[in-house]
Amino acid sequence: MVPESERIQEDELRDAWPVLEPRDRVEGFRLLPPASADDFFLSLSAMDQAGLLQALTPGERRTWMRLLPPDDAADVLQEMPPDAREGYLALLDDTFRREVLVLMAYAEDAAGGLMNPRFARVRPDASIDEALGYLRKQAREQVETVYYGYVLDAEQRLLGVVSLRQLFQAAPGKLVRDIMRTDLVTVMEDTHQEAVSRLFAEHALAAIPVVDAQGRMKGIVTVDDIVSVVQEEATEDIQKVGGMEALDAPYFEVGFLTMVKKRAGWLLILFVSEMLTATAMSRYEEEIARAVVLSLFVPLIISSGGNSGSQASTLIVRSLALTEVRLRDWWRVLRRELFSGLVLGAVLGTVGVMRILLWEHLFHSYGEHATLVALTVGFAVLGVVTWGTLSGSMLPFILRRLGFDPASASAPFVATLVDVSGLVIYFTTAELILRGTLL
Amino acid sequence: MVPESERIQEDELRDAWPVLEPRDRVEGFRLLPPASADDFFLSLSAMDQAGLLQALTPGERRTWMRLLPPDDAADVLQEMPPDAREGYLALLDDTFRREVLVLMAYAEDAAGGLMNPRFARVRPDASIDEALGYLRKQAREQVETVYYGYVLDAEQRLLGVVSLRQLFQAAPGKLVRDIMRTDLVTVMEDTHQEAVSRLFAEHALAAIPVVDAQGRMKGIVTVDDIVSVVQEEATEDIQKVGGMEALDAPYFEVGFLTMVKKRAGWLLILFVSEMLTATAMSRYEEEIARAVVLSLFVPLIISSGGNSGSQASTLIVRSLALTEVRLRDWWRVLRRELFSGLVLGAVLGTVGVMRILLWEHLFHSYGEHATLVALTVGFAVLGVVTWGTLSGSMLPFILRRLGFDPASASAPFVATLVDVSGLVIYFTTAELILRGTLL
Repeated sequence: MVPESERIQEDELRDAWPVLEPRDRVEGFRLLPPASADDFFLSLSAMDQAGLLQALTPGERRTWMRLLPPDDAADVLQEMPPDAREGYLALLDDTFRREVLVLMAYAEDAAGGLMNPRFARVRPDASIDEALGYLRKQAREQVETVYYGYVLDAEQRLLGVVSLRQLFQAAPGKLVRDIMRTDLVTVMEDTHQEAVSRLFAEHALAAIPVVDAQGRMKGIVTVDDIVSVVQEEATEDIQKVGGMEALDAPYFEVGFLTMVKKRAGWLLILFVSEMLTATAMSRYEEEIARAVVLSLFVPLIISSGGNSGSQASTLIVRSLALTEVRLRDWWRVLRRELFSGLVLGAVLGTVGVMRILLWEHLFHSYGEHATLVALTVGFAVLGVVTWGTLSGSMLPFILRRLGFDPASASAPFVATLVDVSGLVIYFTTAELILRGTLL
Repeated sequence: MVPESERIQEDELRDAWPVLEPRDRVEGFRLLPPASADDFFLSLSAMDQAGLLQALTPGERRTWMRLLPPDDAADVLQEMPPDAREGYLALLDDTFRREVLVLMAYAEDAAGGLMNPRFARVRPDASIDEALGYLRKQAREQVETVYYGYVLDAEQRLLGVVSLRQLFQAAPGKLVRDIMRTDLVTVMEDTHQEAVSRLFAEHALAAIPVVDAQGRMKGIVTVDDIVSVVQEEATEDIQKVGGMEALDAPYFEVGFLTMVKKRAGWLLILFVSEMLTATAMSRYEEEIARAVVLSLFVPLIISSGGNSGSQASTLIVRSLALTEVRLRDWWRVLRRELFSGLVLGAVLGTVGVMRILLWEHLFHSYGEHATLVALTVGFAVLGVVTWGTLSGSMLPFILRRLGFDPASASAPFVATLVDVSGLVIYFTTAELILRGTLL
């Protein structure tokens, strides 16, 4: 067993890692005992591996690059500055370099970019014992997973798969083709990683083979690579819901200026759109001058619309991402959200009316027409919440239909959209209820 | 190969599943050919499996319950009404029932609730060939993963692990104890699933053993179970960020009333807090009466604070969830977000000043003191955005420190908090700049 003192050292380095300067990272890494260093290096993200390699000596770089499986090596190179890649490729032997170059040609978020081109092959007419012996031999040559043998014909087309368990359980004397599974879940090289992770979650598989348009097998995606993909996609969605561009890296590893730029973009768009509220308000300047009391409830009204809208859009964005809801379900969602909006609006509106009447009773805050003001606010909240819920739930469908990412229907985006219409709803209600009294 | 017509039937059922009535689900499921039915049943969520079982005949129930591994069977029973569970347990044979009962005692979101109690055991003093033969025998008895042999002493304490690959690669004549890995990543029975999934992502493992306080091995959690855990945790976080209680089920499967209740709670809290804006506004009623132009920018000012606040809180919530940022980093985050807030506020404030001056130039919208009004809005935006960014980024730390889930620092929650303080900042700025002219 690795001595306790070393275990702690590895865990300590892992804990401190996010806040260490590059120089301290290298120093800590070099202090790790060899066994933990391997484990530690392999567990780093591709970005951290790239950063570390750039700080090491050429001799060390060679050692660590060769430790990586080809798919991870390709990811690391993609994190390097383009002009540095050539030098790292030169550290690899010919076969490895060729594998890495092929993988780098794929988009990083496609199955081709995630897959490992090394997998165990077996012939369909091999016997059970031949197949076991063959897998045993391939295990010595560092194939990523030897627990599945992929059955290929002479043209490298995928015919089926046998698991080690099936081989263990099979009656001797049978051939691979007799026991292989042929109802395979496969993906294409350009299948998006989100679709790949959905297949893993749906079918509870350990590995999915990647094939080209001719059915030739190119590699395998394994489930351990998918855990980080799922994390990554969820982070992107959460950051978009919060109203910013996806960061693509941990908080402390993004430079200050990059971070500000990624955040300023959306904030500026929202700010400029929100200026429409000033325009909308100025249309009602006279009404406000006549009944200043109306202005007191402007923040309350527009935030109710914004909150119910962000709630509805977040709900639908996530349901679309998990394919619990599909594009064609928009009509069912619309009906359901219309009723949700009306119920939520009625509840909040009632609370609003009671609050105003109570304050009037206690403090005489709102003048002689307090009851009418209360009614105005109540009906406006009902209208604004219904409208916010409806537009928040429909916006993700519209974005998806137009080919955008529904997650861009962020909470702040929906809130801004609903703010302008909320003001119109509020002042129109006021004109209807207060004409002849306050207005 | 399963005929193409059957494959389509299974995929069609999977596609239509979320929108089918219970009766149609049963009918579609019964029409599946036996091979696809197994695959389809195993790929359903525990909730859907429970729903389906309740609609089947007792004979069918027995068949399908027995197909499930014990950890999944326990999940299904947990989804059933408590008084129905006894009947389903009676369908299982004694050993299986005992395993399921043990698992049901664990919290569903703890390692104990995720683990499978069936795993392959090997003795430390077995030879390589004995171990291989033994794993081969256990494979016939349906052990979840035969690709790892767990090395236990006489007291069932975990000593190490050997992978099939290591056994395949080992020189004959060695013993299991010579080649086993002993630097193990393990979890306790009550480790939360979020921590378990983090270990899978960090170490790229296929399975993690679960041990009790005495180091005795209880079961294994496999990575394919973790993919859905990661999805689930991300969905919870996203729904909280969007300002609602986590739904714990797909959109269409949550009853209308439950859904409205889960949404109304947060909306009501936000609505009642937002009423403070009406109180804050009424403190400035006189100022508004004297300078109605000030009221025009209220929505713009408070939404700028809300947007920058939700952005900052979302960023920190996710970074805390992924442990990219820890509680003790709050001071570094504070400094960084203070500068981010100042830069973002300066950018937005400048745009705001230019917009007002431009409109004044074009339409004479804001009267003789337009320049002073523009300055007021500009400085107020600078202050509100800085304040929003700071409080949005600190709130998740405070919640975590107090023992709450930081994800409750939802976009709408932060926006509401910032709205009230935003009004105070705006009108204080106005008093400073406009005293003696407009005010």
